[in-house]
Amino acid sequence: MSTPPRVALIGCGRIGRVHARTLASRRDLCEFAIVADSFPDVAEHTAASFGVPAWTVDAEEAIANRSVDAVILASSTETHAPYIELASRYGKSIFTEKPIALDLESTERVLSAAANAGVRLQVGFQRRFDPGYAAAKAAIERGELGTLEMIHDVMRDPAPPPAGYLAQSGGLYRDMAIHNFDSVRWLMGEEPCEIFAMASALVSDDIRAANDVDTSVVTLRFPSGALASIENSRRSGFGYDVRTEIFGSAGALMVGESRDLPLRRYTSAGVTEDHQYFFLERFDDAYRLEIIAFLTAVRDDTQVTVTGQDGRAALQLAVAAEESLRQGRPISLQTTEVLYAQS
Amino acid sequence: MSTPPRVALIGCGRIGRVHARTLASRRDLCEFAIVADSFPDVAEHTAASFGVPAWTVDAEEAIANRSVDAVILASSTETHAPYIELASRYGKSIFTEKPIALDLESTERVLSAAANAGVRLQVGFQRRFDPGYAAAKAAIERGELGTLEMIHDVMRDPAPPPAGYLAQSGGLYRDMAIHNFDSVRWLMGEEPCEIFAMASALVSDDIRAANDVDTSVVTLRFPSGALASIENSRRSGFGYDVRTEIFGSAGALMVGESRDLPLRRYTSAGVTEDHQYFFLERFDDAYRLEIIAFLTAVRDDTQVTVTGQDGRAALQLAVAAEESLRQGRPISLQTTEVLYAQS
Amino acid sequence: MSTPPRVALIGCGRIGRVHARTLASRRDLCEFAIVADSFPDVAEHTAASFGVPAWTVDAEEAIANRSVDAVILASSTETHAPYIELASRYGKSIFTEKPIALDLESTERVLSAAANAGVRLQVGFQRRFDPGYAAAKAAIERGELGTLEMIHDVMRDPAPPPAGYLAQSGGLYRDMAIHNFDSVRWLMGEEPCEIFAMASALVSDDIRAANDVDTSVVTLRFPSGALASIENSRRSGFGYDVRTEIFGSAGALMVGESRDLPLRRYTSAGVTEDHQYFFLERFDDAYRLEIIAFLTAVRDDTQVTVTGQDGRAALQLAVAAEESLRQGRPISLQTTEVLYAQS
Amino acid sequence: MSTPPRVALIGCGRIGRVHARTLASRRDLCEFAIVADSFPDVAEHTAASFGVPAWTVDAEEAIANRSVDAVILASSTETHAPYIELASRYGKSIFTEKPIALDLESTERVLSAAANAGVRLQVGFQRRFDPGYAAAKAAIERGELGTLEMIHDVMRDPAPPPAGYLAQSGGLYRDMAIHNFDSVRWLMGEEPCEIFAMASALVSDDIRAANDVDTSVVTLRFPSGALASIENSRRSGFGYDVRTEIFGSAGALMVGESRDLPLRRYTSAGVTEDHQYFFLERFDDAYRLEIIAFLTAVRDDTQVTVTGQDGRAALQLAVAAEESLRQGRPISLQTTEVLYAQS
Repeated sequence: MSTPPRVALIGCGRIGRVHARTLASRRDLCEFAIVADSFPDVAEHTAASFGVPAWTVDAEEAIANRSVDAVILASSTETHAPYIELASRYGKSIFTEKPIALDLESTERVLSAAANAGVRLQVGFQRRFDPGYAAAKAAIERGELGTLEMIHDVMRDPAPPPAGYLAQSGGLYRDMAIHNFDSVRWLMGEEPCEIFAMASALVSDDIRAANDVDTSVVTLRFPSGALASIENSRRSGFGYDVRTEIFGSAGALMVGESRDLPLRRYTSAGVTEDHQYFFLERFDDAYRLEIIAFLTAVRDDTQVTVTGQDGRAALQLAVAAEESLRQGRPISLQTTEVLYAQS
Repeated sequence: MSTPPRVALIGCGRIGRVHARTLASRRDLCEFAIVADSFPDVAEHTAASFGVPAWTVDAEEAIANRSVDAVILASSTETHAPYIELASRYGKSIFTEKPIALDLESTERVLSAAANAGVRLQVGFQRRFDPGYAAAKAAIERGELGTLEMIHDVMRDPAPPPAGYLAQSGGLYRDMAIHNFDSVRWLMGEEPCEIFAMASALVSDDIRAANDVDTSVVTLRFPSGALASIENSRRSGFGYDVRTEIFGSAGALMVGESRDLPLRRYTSAGVTEDHQYFFLERFDDAYRLEIIAFLTAVRDDTQVTVTGQDGRAALQLAVAAEESLRQGRPISLQTTEVLYAQS
Repeated sequence: MSTPPRVALIGCGRIGRVHARTLASRRDLCEFAIVADSFPDVAEHTAASFGVPAWTVDAEEAIANRSVDAVILASSTETHAPYIELASRYGKSIFTEKPIALDLESTERVLSAAANAGVRLQVGFQRRFDPGYAAAKAAIERGELGTLEMIHDVMRDPAPPPAGYLAQSGGLYRDMAIHNFDSVRWLMGEEPCEIFAMASALVSDDIRAANDVDTSVVTLRFPSGALASIENSRRSGFGYDVRTEIFGSAGALMVGESRDLPLRRYTSAGVTEDHQYFFLERFDDAYRLEIIAFLTAVRDDTQVTVTGQDGRAALQLAVAAEESLRQGRPISLQTTEVLYAQS
Repeated sequence: MSTPPRVALIGCGRIGRVHARTLASRRDLCEFAIVADSFPDVAEHTAASFGVPAWTVDAEEAIANRSVDAVILASSTETHAPYIELASRYGKSIFTEKPIALDLESTERVLSAAANAGVRLQVGFQRRFDPGYAAAKAAIERGELGTLEMIHDVMRDPAPPPAGYLAQSGGLYRDMAIHNFDSVRWLMGEEPCEIFAMASALVSDDIRAANDVDTSVVTLRFPSGALASIENSRRSGFGYDVRTEIFGSAGALMVGESRDLPLRRYTSAGVTEDHQYFFLERFDDAYRLEIIAFLTAVRDDTQVTVTGQDGRAALQLAVAAEESLRQGRPISLQTTEVLYAQS
């Protein structure tokens, strides 16, 4: 076993602190060397909480730091692309929260930078590391479902994000449905060849003002004839709703429906259970496991399993969904097959 | 209370016998006067089993019979239209299994005949009488969901029907999805204005040979901006799959997921429950309650709640779904709004 | 196939009408010849509702009626014993609601009368015919659980019965827990050898005034070393609660937990399902199937599967539970083994 | 906020490593100063994995170490009592895995030592910190259930422990059911006044050889008249089975039934979910939360919520259950009320 890699965490917000907890509790897999955050208080407090010896407000310095082997990018979206390019230049292993960038051009440029530098780049599609999704994928690969025929993939947030977030989010498809585009590609095991989007703005004036949509059904066709539908909403009225149904010739798998507490209440009004309210509760394990997988790949000098190409392929589907919405008709994806080829 | 109506049951096959059981056990609501089936053995056996005083192989005679007040049509699909026209001529109340007919022209002609004769005509969309669906509809009408935003309506048969049935079924949309078209219209409480269908033939050579599809996702847009998706398959790999998810601004309702037995098995391989295998188990109550509703309407001389217009509206959606499939693009339904107006 | 038996229904109350519905809808298995009820209106109305040609207020006349082959006793508890004796004298097949009688002496006398007359006598432990319980019993017999080790059998009523009923009910053990005594004996496949009861009166002053209990745990030991516990309450606070957990060396079976509607509500307060409120909903199928089993046994001249001996054995356990409560210690049942031998 | 306490972890086995993970990830609540294990490799490896600066094979040295404020005892059962006495002498805050000791005399002596030294002592009844149990307790205290009437508390291990463990375990009641004795006391909010145990040895020759039992039902009566039953087995045949049902005048709470994965499989054989196999999966959160509660109490200089008195009270019920088993009759606990008084 090689020496554990020295890691820098860039960004100590909500998701950054989740990753910090993982880094701090797996000293066998990493040396948690430095944290960076543009707010000095936040950086200092995070370092103190997790026993990290150094902190800085200068992310670029932390990335470039000679003693750092790997960086975890949990900073704001618009910093992902420049930080990946910087880390590539310095030969660091990179884990980045999704998205790499909000447009295809920047994404391509960043992927080239990483490829040319020969660094590993993992994208934070955490759902692939959720034990439920991972077990579903394994069952599909063992052939338990026979031939895949249909996937129905649902994602609803409990409530819409604030207007400030919406404005720079990239819209429903690049910000939210991108998780579904990744999971449908991954579970189906082939690239879609046709996409159609139908959507409305029902939830808030902010969303309408941003020319965005909040309620959407996307339909996808795959070369094998299998179909997928993706259902999104910015507001559920009841909590987080992430469920995926996978149908094959020999049966079906349903992922999701986790209860928050192992508790049921029986009253004259019925039997009530709670549900997980949001993504941090639902994907707690997944956020931990994706970092462990990344650290293990760095330590053992192996490939990561969720690549920059996966990030690009999901973004392409988001862009195509927007195009379908604009044109009011299905969009063929066949000519882009080459682009989807796994590197 | 008026005298219970005298009823003729036309067709003693699988579903006919289900209706016979209801008629025989509700002598307070009807006098079960006669059964007709083209096979004399079947007619005689049914009459004997349910204590019906008369039977015949001549359905038209039973319909025309002066002492009969109401007819239940459970005969084969192609007989529905002529029998409804005949019963209309004789002024009988009519309950017919769906569909009225497989094409819009015949359907229009039959509806006109019934309307001109001033007879009541109920169509067997039994799902509306299922206690689960009925409770969902009542909750929506009480405003429990706030504003409706999305419906996802699923229907999978356990296994494809025989080739003979497929050939004359009218295809996936007119034969199977027609139940979903009805339930989505009914639950949403408005008529759709746009429809898009994506489908494949994955299940059998018979279906491909019939130029039919077996795996389909239909997306619908409603004037309010609400969306619906309808998922169909001729083969589930595990049993009957009828589930409907209804999302509003204030929460969601999920109808379906009935277990066949109140029994769970715990073994080292996990916790296993069964599921209802097919429609007769799933909709046992609904088939009973729709007949009771019809008999009550006849006895009390009131309107039925699932009308011939409902049958036509669902068929129009099926036809439009086929058109979308043929053209590979969404179809606008706006110009047909007048047609959908409830009579 | 022999001629279907001619049947008299004695008692047209709540459960009597449930049986009437079964008799009316299975003319292939019986000729529903006459109904008796001490209230003439009730008898006449029941006859009219179910198409029964004759009715009477004189139960004894209906039982003695020469043309009647079988009687269904759904009259009040104190009439069961004299009517069984009368029906035995006239050689009729007998189905009786539980209990045969509230004391062991009368029960013995009645069983002797039926045995001497050579008539078949089925007791209404309907739970054995519930598809869930029947599937559990079949799984046990196939060896799916390995060696049986423990049963936990729960029965809670939604609310206590009226004081008038309580006074003549025979108390918690003879009236209510008797269903659990039967199901535990039946599922375990052996007779218990020791019993201990701990109980309180927590629910109502009526129950305390009647010197009865309403909240009870009974523990049973079986010769194999297997154990059972029976939990009873006259008031659940939420609805009917009938669940049975069966544990063996190779796994477990859980019977119960039926939802009334296939519907779940998702709101910000959680996910809510309803539950079946009382026994008529929970055991709707079982009440039908036990009558069908009885009619089939009469028609085919075979044995019934729930015998008078089963009624006696369950009553003996109720009496022993009361004795344990009185003495405050476990009671040995070993010396009564002979009594339990199936006839 | 005061300085976080310096903590020594004594014992780095299965549960010790679970606690180590918590200590390592909450540097805001503690300084994880030293680990001790009698196997030097294990101690060294644990220290390295979790970034702990010091390790030792000498537990007593670690406990006595001047710079240590608090000790976590996760060493073998027979060391708990002497280590608690030692830590008391040195004035350390103490968290100990259950049991304090296997006999009442040692337990009393140890409690006195801690009381005389004025140190806080928390016992590892982790179930109280499980979010499901904690929510149930909170609901009871808010009065959601009305008056408590009955508790049914189940605990089955997936498979019996090895013979070596059994021999020194203290038997089913002191080793396993002690968790149920604690949770029933805690949830009911009063001390039981009568106990009766019925049990068998069905699972293994080892258990019979040790004169122990493996299948047990214990019934408890409380002064209010409420009842409880506790069901234990050393072997479930399917996995870990920890469920608690709490019934009151206004409804019920059911704790338990956690799935391991949010995944259901639908096949022609039914619908299958998995379940949590053993206690480390089921109580993962609880093990973390109990340590956090302990560290918080130390840091803030407040009382712990699960005290040594709780450890003694549960042990007394275990001893009384054994006595009931020996005598074959219920045992009154009324005279011991004083002993149960919370300190």
